Amino acid sequence: MTQRIVIIGGGAAGIDVLEFLLREQTERKKAEITLIKREHEGFFSSCGLPFALQGRYELNELVLFKPEFYRAKGVDFRTGTEVTGITVPGKYVRLATGEELPYDDLVIATGGRPVIPPIPGTTLEGVFTLWSREDGERLKAVLDAECAKNAVVIGGGMIGLQAAVAFARNGLKTTVVEQCPSLLPAILDADVASVVQNWLPNEVTFRLGRAVRALEGAGHVASVRVNEEAIAADLVLIAAGMRPAVDLARTAGLALGACGGIKVNHALRVKRVGSYLNNVYALGDCIEVIDAVTKRSRLSQLASTALIQARVVTSNLLGGTATYGGCLSPTVASIGGLQVGSVGVTTAYARSCGMNVKAGIAIKYTKARFFPTRKLIVAKLLFDASTERLIGAQLISEEGIAERINELTLAIKAGATALELIMRERCFEPSLTMVEDVIVDAAMKAHKRATTP
Amino acid sequence: MTQRIVIIGGGAAGIDVLEFLLREQTERKKAEITLIKREHEGFFSSCGLPFALQGRYELNELVLFKPEFYRAKGVDFRTGTEVTGITVPGKYVRLATGEELPYDDLVIATGGRPVIPPIPGTTLEGVFTLWSREDGERLKAVLDAECAKNAVVIGGGMIGLQAAVAFARNGLKTTVVEQCPSLLPAILDADVASVVQNWLPNEVTFRLGRAVRALEGAGHVASVRVNEEAIAADLVLIAAGMRPAVDLARTAGLALGACGGIKVNHALRVKRVGSYLNNVYALGDCIEVIDAVTKRSRLSQLASTALIQARVVTSNLLGGTATYGGCLSPTVASIGGLQVGSVGVTTAYARSCGMNVKAGIAIKYTKARFFPTRKLIVAKLLFDASTERLIGAQLISEEGIAERINELTLAIKAGATALELIMRERCFEPSLTMVEDVIVDAAMKAHKRATTP
Repeated sequence: MTQRIVIIGGGAAGIDVLEFLLREQTERKKAEITLIKREHEGFFSSCGLPFALQGRYELNELVLFKPEFYRAKGVDFRTGTEVTGITVPGKYVRLATGEELPYDDLVIATGGRPVIPPIPGTTLEGVFTLWSREDGERLKAVLDAECAKNAVVIGGGMIGLQAAVAFARNGLKTTVVEQCPSLLPAILDADVASVVQNWLPNEVTFRLGRAVRALEGAGHVASVRVNEEAIAADLVLIAAGMRPAVDLARTAGLALGACGGIKVNHALRVKRVGSYLNNVYALGDCIEVIDAVTKRSRLSQLASTALIQARVVTSNLLGGTATYGGCLSPTVASIGGLQVGSVGVTTAYARSCGMNVKAGIAIKYTKARFFPTRKLIVAKLLFDASTERLIGAQLISEEGIAERINELTLAIKAGATALELIMRERCFEPSLTMVEDVIVDAAMKAHKRATTP
Repeated sequence: MTQRIVIIGGGAAGIDVLEFLLREQTERKKAEITLIKREHEGFFSSCGLPFALQGRYELNELVLFKPEFYRAKGVDFRTGTEVTGITVPGKYVRLATGEELPYDDLVIATGGRPVIPPIPGTTLEGVFTLWSREDGERLKAVLDAECAKNAVVIGGGMIGLQAAVAFARNGLKTTVVEQCPSLLPAILDADVASVVQNWLPNEVTFRLGRAVRALEGAGHVASVRVNEEAIAADLVLIAAGMRPAVDLARTAGLALGACGGIKVNHALRVKRVGSYLNNVYALGDCIEVIDAVTKRSRLSQLASTALIQARVVTSNLLGGTATYGGCLSPTVASIGGLQVGSVGVTTAYARSCGMNVKAGIAIKYTKARFFPTRKLIVAKLLFDASTERLIGAQLISEEGIAERINELTLAIKAGATALELIMRERCFEPSLTMVEDVIVDAAMKAHKRATTP
């Protein structure tokens, strides 16, 4: 019998599973693969949206694959299609059309949806999210029309700040409102975040530690109320994070976790009525992961997280025994030319889990001090105070951040201590590196703090 | 009694020990430090020489510290001074002036000297090495005079190629002669080296797999004889590597290794009459190291190697018990804008040590394929065929090489397998990375080769 695999969702997670299945399955044993998605594209890279708004390329560059691409490979690739239910005991999914689609193995990759704060006025005209291709097109049209003068971004995370830069570059006076007292609170400590804040263009101003009370206007948004202040706004972007899209999973009786995502085991199989199902998988923005440092449940809604999970799901779909371990969520973003990276825990998160943190922060150059094109680079490393093992890292510069984050991700996984970071070999050439990297200096500062009275 | 430490040599290795001693020693327990060097600068960065020849900055930018800088910190910093002997039993060194300088602890950092091939004509005018400040000044004067038309570089290693680019940029027709059949044979396999060769400017041509027989001319060099060919040359650079400078060590009765460097133990202490001395250390270009992959002796004449060794020596000078383990020699260089990096073993070296190698090579972009400023990147990863553990890596691109080499250095140390490289979390943002890095693709190609029939 041919194995029938149904994938619900055509974002990065669903498409990654599809791609890996196509790569990995042998001619001899081909599965019958159906992918069902609500959107009309084959694969659209939503991570690329903020740069399209900045004018780096056209939005349609982000349609990386058309449905025909997958259909030509024998996939039943259904766009514009809604799944209305999953019947686990009967092994089928029901579509909005009434059709019932049987499966042997099911993959749930329903992703997330933008969080809309429970305040008045979020349905006014001129209020946007930045998630889908349609969101991007609507926002681009507003920017291209050059009518908007004042933008407010609700949320000081990666997407919010990247969009704020795009608005500022389009000539809009832009205000970022963030509930927490510092920017990028999910990935940066306040001291590192202040560097990012100072870097952003003058056209961007901030209201930190303040909540939005309401969006106001008659039909079209005209202002944003932040505490007692009314900030003029003819364009509002809500960038307040994503919640896991779990309606289908919940209705099907699947277990959800404390953070609102689908609960999965190490094989990324879902749980129902107390036990894990051997033929239903979930991955991506809709699930919860285990934090590799704190061992607690949390979300990791990154395309890079979905990619690794897709490898595990694909292997298991094809009879393997792959497992997904703790998650470190290395992350990086270019915010107006400043590269910001983070991996592992922040100080606040570690402390909230009862860990004692020893930190080292350093500022150096990316290349030899005599080399003309050197840039400044800031690194903050967090160590478990008792073991001096690395548990988190935050870096900022105009270059070389993503790769250092990848290195430090491996260092955390390998259990590297501050002393091991200091004593490790690194390559050197004056046009490309300093002989003592900023990472080494940050590790030394933390290590000193341990040994000096 | 105040501890008397004498350091012989003021290149990177000696200066690193001096700097770390000044950083680490406490007010309470200060050593009496003497550094003796033949050159007249405080610290000169010879790694920066090729870029000065390319015109990126003036040569004097490379004098990073003057002698006064160290003297102001209480160091007896002696420039222009020659050590003529070490008397281990009497614990003193003799200077060319006849002075005898007692020590409690001695650090030998005598470095290396350029290898001059045993062929006729190497003392002709117009024949240079590129090692000291004086070398740089002489070569710069020739380039600035704009008289030379044809240059020949003997040696296709990092320094030879960086200098060849400098000569080409100064308008000279330049030929690189390399004995091995491919460039950079110490760090790259031939397939990867061919990418470098194709990248270099048209003004640079190659004679590979051919040895120089003689330099010819009357007083001033006029041509270079390579097999039966005479290549016109009014400027010849000998860049054929460095030999360890061990004359002092040999005369003092210290043990030398098979590669001609001073023999040291894990604490970087030297050996004499069958046992390791507890108060004499050696480090840098003059010693032999143990290769971390093959466990054999070899040289690692890099400023970055000296840096880590200096940490070990300093710690032990101050009563510590630091050890220097196997060496991976991560290395990187910008050759005319192309970044070339390598770590661990090459295929040829691994095979010469009896290892079976499984390789994966991949070519991708550095950023998302829709991102306009993406660059091509090539990665070749070498794995032990039986364990699939990473043992070597070679990378080329216009960006992001040094940091990936540092990551892969850690991966080799941590014993990472191809599958672990594939399954590991990496950060993603389309303006900065691809979601599947070239490293992952290269690992997959090697891994496939294991599992498919």
